[in-house]
Amino acid sequence: MKIIIVGGVAGGMSAATRLRRLMEDAEIIVLEKGPFVSFANCGLPYYVSGEIADRDALLVQTPESLNARFNLDVRPFHEVTAISSENKTVTIKNEEGSFEESYDKLILSPGAKPLIPEMSGLAEATNVYSLRNVPDLDQIMTALEDKPAKATVIGAGFIGLEMAENLKSRGLEVTVIERAPHVLPPLDEEMAAFVQNELVRNDIRVITGESAQSFSDQGKKITLTNDEEVASDLTILSVGVRPENTLAQQAGLATGLGGGIVVDETYQTSAPDIYAVGDAIVVKQQVSGEDALISLASPANRQGRQVADVIAGLARTNRGSIGTAIVRVFDLAAASTGLSERVVKQLGLNYQVVHVSGKDHAGYYPGASDVTLKLVFEPKTGKIYGAQGVGAKGVDKRIDILATAIKGGLTIFDLPELEFTYAPPFGSAKDPINMLGYAAINLAEGISDSIQWYQLKEEQKNGSQLLDVRNPGELANGCFPGAINLPLNQLRERISELDSTKNYVVSCHSGLRSYVAERLLKQKGFNVKNLDGAFALYKTVRPEELIYE
Amino acid sequence: MKIIIVGGVAGGMSAATRLRRLMEDAEIIVLEKGPFVSFANCGLPYYVSGEIADRDALLVQTPESLNARFNLDVRPFHEVTAISSENKTVTIKNEEGSFEESYDKLILSPGAKPLIPEMSGLAEATNVYSLRNVPDLDQIMTALEDKPAKATVIGAGFIGLEMAENLKSRGLEVTVIERAPHVLPPLDEEMAAFVQNELVRNDIRVITGESAQSFSDQGKKITLTNDEEVASDLTILSVGVRPENTLAQQAGLATGLGGGIVVDETYQTSAPDIYAVGDAIVVKQQVSGEDALISLASPANRQGRQVADVIAGLARTNRGSIGTAIVRVFDLAAASTGLSERVVKQLGLNYQVVHVSGKDHAGYYPGASDVTLKLVFEPKTGKIYGAQGVGAKGVDKRIDILATAIKGGLTIFDLPELEFTYAPPFGSAKDPINMLGYAAINLAEGISDSIQWYQLKEEQKNGSQLLDVRNPGELANGCFPGAINLPLNQLRERISELDSTKNYVVSCHSGLRSYVAERLLKQKGFNVKNLDGAFALYKTVRPEELIYE
Repeated sequence: MKIIIVGGVAGGMSAATRLRRLMEDAEIIVLEKGPFVSFANCGLPYYVSGEIADRDALLVQTPESLNARFNLDVRPFHEVTAISSENKTVTIKNEEGSFEESYDKLILSPGAKPLIPEMSGLAEATNVYSLRNVPDLDQIMTALEDKPAKATVIGAGFIGLEMAENLKSRGLEVTVIERAPHVLPPLDEEMAAFVQNELVRNDIRVITGESAQSFSDQGKKITLTNDEEVASDLTILSVGVRPENTLAQQAGLATGLGGGIVVDETYQTSAPDIYAVGDAIVVKQQVSGEDALISLASPANRQGRQVADVIAGLARTNRGSIGTAIVRVFDLAAASTGLSERVVKQLGLNYQVVHVSGKDHAGYYPGASDVTLKLVFEPKTGKIYGAQGVGAKGVDKRIDILATAIKGGLTIFDLPELEFTYAPPFGSAKDPINMLGYAAINLAEGISDSIQWYQLKEEQKNGSQLLDVRNPGELANGCFPGAINLPLNQLRERISELDSTKNYVVSCHSGLRSYVAERLLKQKGFNVKNLDGAFALYKTVRPEELIYE
Repeated sequence: MKIIIVGGVAGGMSAATRLRRLMEDAEIIVLEKGPFVSFANCGLPYYVSGEIADRDALLVQTPESLNARFNLDVRPFHEVTAISSENKTVTIKNEEGSFEESYDKLILSPGAKPLIPEMSGLAEATNVYSLRNVPDLDQIMTALEDKPAKATVIGAGFIGLEMAENLKSRGLEVTVIERAPHVLPPLDEEMAAFVQNELVRNDIRVITGESAQSFSDQGKKITLTNDEEVASDLTILSVGVRPENTLAQQAGLATGLGGGIVVDETYQTSAPDIYAVGDAIVVKQQVSGEDALISLASPANRQGRQVADVIAGLARTNRGSIGTAIVRVFDLAAASTGLSERVVKQLGLNYQVVHVSGKDHAGYYPGASDVTLKLVFEPKTGKIYGAQGVGAKGVDKRIDILATAIKGGLTIFDLPELEFTYAPPFGSAKDPINMLGYAAINLAEGISDSIQWYQLKEEQKNGSQLLDVRNPGELANGCFPGAINLPLNQLRERISELDSTKNYVVSCHSGLRSYVAERLLKQKGFNVKNLDGAFALYKTVRPEELIYE
């Protein structure tokens, strides 16, 4: 059997090596239009700062090493320009010209390409770069040799933020521009606010709610949608990617959402013997069941291996992807899995939200730091829609656990049951994940009622009294307008000071004490809700609305 | 309602605080025979070295703080000496004498007590200590003021090893004595070998397969079962715990396995209105369905909260525990969840084993270190029986993920599907957990066949030829006796040098290349098995059997 694979990175190369392990006698040709195969996409930003110092470290495999070990015919600088599904041939262009190659099975793994919006002056700009591959990186590194002073990153997604950090580490003055109302749009606003604050703390200028409108002075000047002008010596355009579908469309393959290649559960495209995997295909978002484009390395690698299994005759189906991602931003990690609250709301699903703040390991052991987790779930069935986390340490672990829970169909009722490794350097007897479960169950069972940070002003407008149960000494950190203060430990004896005909919202610093206060007041007949995430979360996302004395 | 809780640590205090949040008007009395409640048991060893420097950090809550916040009546130095389930009273002894207190509901959370074997001379020894609570710790700290030179730790379980490390960090010469054939008996031998090597690397003397037989010279001399004498200035006896069931037995409550208190799924003992939680009860090992004693903080806390819910009228059932634990031993972490291979074998279950070695995060990003994982599973259904892990970093994360998978009933077929956070500082596109799944599925589907390290000599005796596919340069690290060397990258061209009528076992360094070689040879008609874990694992557990040139 002769198998041609178009694209030699994640999905393509996983397919090629697995195919060889299953089909020793197959002829396997990998065609890659760029100069490199099997390189470490996700490591590219870290080479900019020198954090990854060795360029060769990014080049995980070479055509030679792949040939020696797997007997693969790997051809860089070979671009497939056309497919004839009738004749089962591809047209290949290399430096010597154009020729045809036949196949029995064809696997497309072309990946995604950077989204380049139409903007006036962009074509004339000489200092605007994308970052998807090693040649892109080399261009940026060359530009950096001229010691640019000011860098601009347009688009504050995962890669944009990595580039912002790495350019800053290199000594540049960095501005980040994001069209959405907050950085890191896959996260919800209040979770992204932790990241935004960390960027600012590290002297990155952050502009949100605006986008670049036009470039002038060969790209040296960027005019924003609010007419502000930003001077830039080096600009990274990182506003997203879209499926690389040129070849698929030329070949008449069916495409769907956002131009993604449509495949069935066994990665078969609309044409016989042509398969597709990776960033270029439309997948099922497993949590919502909707079509989605998910450009991540983990699903791409899995799909590559699965399509090899399918071709070798093993029974495999693509169950879909949930989308799990993380980014380090200076001393903070921010991660998400599944659906955000914004998406769940857009889909019109019934949901509730809970935030929990805990320590990455036992608080009594040195070096413990805060982890803030958010869970979005269906309160009746307990189905987990998604989760997000921020913190200095231990965020990857918690989101990985929750990703496992989502993939495995665990509900909020299972989270308290989870038994984690606990010794003081590693965890706690009650992990934040367990606490997340307890808190979610309290909401689901009506033991607690909560409001979200963005509902506070509305609640107050409707006559609810905000009761702050922090100790007086804590109020110096900031106060809510209109709140009354009554420390939790005095609440029982001073309960008569409260008006039982009023509705109350309780808050403390992080939400633990306010929940205790809520339970106490509820049992005494008060109508009371807990401000989820409490003061700490509110201060992160809306510091300007608080009163500082 | 009047609720009495016996025991004021993990389970007892979780019950008390949850009860208050659910039953504001209940009278809740917590009786603790020791001086402290709600202290950090698991932190005690770290105070020995000063890693936790502040003793108060170990005292998480005090009777005063619990009264102020939760209106709890917490009484230290109050020992319950008898229960009358007929009269619904307990007899309490404190410094003033003995008195009775009535209850509507009684919760027993007495914990476990150190196992003290009968050994000649032990009663006369003045330098032998256990470590379960703060008074134990205080005694040890006082003994350390005399600057003992030689410490002996009898029992190399989790706490024993923590004590060994912390005593060593304090500057003592430490000997560890373990009756089992290897340290850390909850782990299997080859995984425990990583820990044993780490102890030796840090100048801890490790004696396995022997136990203390007698003490002489007031404990200064310990005679082992092989008649060896070990001099000891300070000895920690840490050979396990058993349920604290004195009170339960006095009250005529049913006890079971190892004397543990028998409870139903709602924590009800054999007597009405008496409940029990924590280390003292018999639980269901959730993986095997067998009775078990599991002395861990996580289940104890969960049970405490659940029994409060039960008493408050909420529907809760104890689903059982799987047992997840971790220990840091100098620069290494070792963890386990579910059943070990030894236990699975004892239970007579059908099982297979796979070891995978990977990096804690992307290998191309600085600071990546090895994580070695072991999975024990049922090959037909894919059910995961248990997992173990060792490594410098990221072991807690992997075992927590696998514990989640076990609790959620995920199988080996789900592990490749798991989508984890991946950015270079945090993970890999194919996490070792995904690899574990792929490797297990290969075994389950017959794509790969493997033998374990302990089967190698038998296989060779039966005529199998060991084929080492490492490169010649790697052989300086050690060679298997009787192996022939043929580097993987030359295997295709030199395959005719092999005898296709023979049975082969393939090995490389870590198992990746040998699997590729196995697949190649299998497809060429050879009868071949992969040495699971390969040279690296064998060298860890049986270094003395290798040849070094």
